[in-house]
Amino acid sequence: MLIVKKFGGTSVANPERVMNVARRCIEDYNKGNDVVVVLSAMDQTTDELIDLAHQVNKKPPKRELDMLMTTGEQVSVAMMAMAMDALGVRAVSLNAFQVRMITTSSYGNARLKRIEKERIRHELDDRKIVIVTGFQGVNKYDDITTLGRGGSDTTAVAIAAALHADACEIYTDVDGVYTADPRICPGARKMKEITYDEMLDLASLGAGVLHNRSVEMAKKYGVTLVVRSSLNNSEGTVLKEETNVERMLISGVALDKSADRISIIGLKNEPGVAFRVFDVLAKANINIDVILQSIGRDGTKDISFTCPDGDADDAIKALEANQGRLHFKSLDINRDVAKLSIVGAGMMTNPGVAAKMFEALYNEDININMISTSEIRVTVLIDEKDGTRAVNAVHDAFGLSE
Amino acid sequence: MLIVKKFGGTSVANPERVMNVARRCIEDYNKGNDVVVVLSAMDQTTDELIDLAHQVNKKPPKRELDMLMTTGEQVSVAMMAMAMDALGVRAVSLNAFQVRMITTSSYGNARLKRIEKERIRHELDDRKIVIVTGFQGVNKYDDITTLGRGGSDTTAVAIAAALHADACEIYTDVDGVYTADPRICPGARKMKEITYDEMLDLASLGAGVLHNRSVEMAKKYGVTLVVRSSLNNSEGTVLKEETNVERMLISGVALDKSADRISIIGLKNEPGVAFRVFDVLAKANINIDVILQSIGRDGTKDISFTCPDGDADDAIKALEANQGRLHFKSLDINRDVAKLSIVGAGMMTNPGVAAKMFEALYNEDININMISTSEIRVTVLIDEKDGTRAVNAVHDAFGLSE
Repeated sequence: MLIVKKFGGTSVANPERVMNVARRCIEDYNKGNDVVVVLSAMDQTTDELIDLAHQVNKKPPKRELDMLMTTGEQVSVAMMAMAMDALGVRAVSLNAFQVRMITTSSYGNARLKRIEKERIRHELDDRKIVIVTGFQGVNKYDDITTLGRGGSDTTAVAIAAALHADACEIYTDVDGVYTADPRICPGARKMKEITYDEMLDLASLGAGVLHNRSVEMAKKYGVTLVVRSSLNNSEGTVLKEETNVERMLISGVALDKSADRISIIGLKNEPGVAFRVFDVLAKANINIDVILQSIGRDGTKDISFTCPDGDADDAIKALEANQGRLHFKSLDINRDVAKLSIVGAGMMTNPGVAAKMFEALYNEDININMISTSEIRVTVLIDEKDGTRAVNAVHDAFGLSE
Repeated sequence: MLIVKKFGGTSVANPERVMNVARRCIEDYNKGNDVVVVLSAMDQTTDELIDLAHQVNKKPPKRELDMLMTTGEQVSVAMMAMAMDALGVRAVSLNAFQVRMITTSSYGNARLKRIEKERIRHELDDRKIVIVTGFQGVNKYDDITTLGRGGSDTTAVAIAAALHADACEIYTDVDGVYTADPRICPGARKMKEITYDEMLDLASLGAGVLHNRSVEMAKKYGVTLVVRSSLNNSEGTVLKEETNVERMLISGVALDKSADRISIIGLKNEPGVAFRVFDVLAKANINIDVILQSIGRDGTKDISFTCPDGDADDAIKALEANQGRLHFKSLDINRDVAKLSIVGAGMMTNPGVAAKMFEALYNEDININMISTSEIRVTVLIDEKDGTRAVNAVHDAFGLSE
């Protein structure tokens, strides 16, 4: 078997943890497997480097920031190779240059274009554990780039795809994907399997275990992803195209408190209004999520939408600056809202799933502000204060508890 | 003009000093010069990284140690590029990979084989200040190497040679090369110019401003080297093949207290004895310096030699282990000796230089234990306690004081 294992910054935060991860990888190696390890920078390193940069330049050029930041993963991989050597196993560390992990030139947020597999293959054939820097690449001019958020996961999946690995294991501080957040839903259960699409919907809704980009890449190349804990040996959750487990109606319930709702009140009821509104917002780089449009009492239109916390002020500013063009009466912002979603490939073939969710909320006397659906997801906007109660009510209603 | 400027770890030890060095380089740039800056790792970084490595492996593999250590210079160059950007000047940092600084594969002590100049040239033509990592290279397999002691100086000289730079300025914590160590010889004077050969003899005698390797390379490729202070703007000392200043009889006086003298007493007076002694020492990796052989009173031979402090115990051990083969009566070690040397290209054409030195020491009642000479150097072994007095006496005798 060829296994790619990815460990994040907390898993290699200090020399002791580096030794622990080394031991864990060696177990798989000693069973005769080929092992590739992808690492992030040791925890805090990244923050320290950014802090250092800001001491000479408040707005450091992105190329130079990438040049600086990528030293973090290089330290991790060299340390890991040394740890494995201390444990008597042959290992070799490789950075993005040495692998030739080619990306676009968007410093700070580059996209992987190609991974050459010769060097990794050569070292594996030599029976070495291969340790690769996550998060980084080089562009065609040999300049160093970084992949942006979730970058190390993406590196791991891309290497697994390039080498046709049997599995790509992502080690995190949770031991798998749960039917709901265990911190607010005591009955939450770890899923054995989940489809890529379900995971994509869960991730974008704030489950936060895996970055969408890596799940999308895994789906595209058919890489079997496993989410596991770096703290214990439990089995984790397997992500694949089709799951074998008997289908529950839905797979999980997600709550996202990071959204704000903005309402634009009293727009003219005429064609092109929605276009003009969202064109303004797109140009201001606002990430729009749920959208609701309704006809007001006096023949005008109201448009409401949700956006991430961080974007709300910019959205208000952009809309106000364009009041002359958009002709609205007033703006309203509600920061105390939450998105509650149910996700499940099973709901495609089962009508009545949404109704069942609404019923559960109605029974708890929880008000629904907005509704949005996709093929495998139903999302409602509720008051933030109702969040925990809502998750548990829906989780129970669909019989997800153990 | 094309100027290569090299700054050591203390010069870039913190963000404030990085800004200072940036300003200094920009001065030259603003005069219309092309500027290449070579940097070491920020002070202490190297020690911290070695300490980190030792926490997972007491004897880390050299390849991985180089992978780890070279992140230090990469941090320096990225920081410097950011600092220059903050000061409104276009700059670009490059590591050994990006320049393509090709070395042998001896990790920890690699030799430069080739520096490609295309990338640096391209960035200079684009009117950028180019900032290059010192001390590091890549071998033909793209593995990262380091150049060993004095590595960053070597990088600077090699780049200056490859680009046919007009000058290579080495910034240190002293402001040039002195006729004697100013800490023990109040009359010591900074030299305006010195030949490569004089500097080589001074360096190997403990003047310690520049590593021999970089001076040898500068001599080989005719690179004009300038030793300057990173703390002030004084002119420094220029190293070249021939100096233009009116020749003093000698250029400088050097004292090296780090030597021990070992005497092998009562060797047989027959051919091959010296060979056997130094063969034993060579195999034990002992660096031998001054050698003296004398015929003893009873028809036996005595051989004395000096070696660095750190090698003396190993030397004694190696000799004792071979007593059966070498047939000596006893060993004697004197750790309280010092080497006093005068250096000067002028002495080649001036007989009586050595005599003048001996006279000065005689006048001070300082005993000479051993004598060794080369074309441009006279070295005597004296008691360590006489060191300071001896330096000043000889410095005065040759009229070196201002």
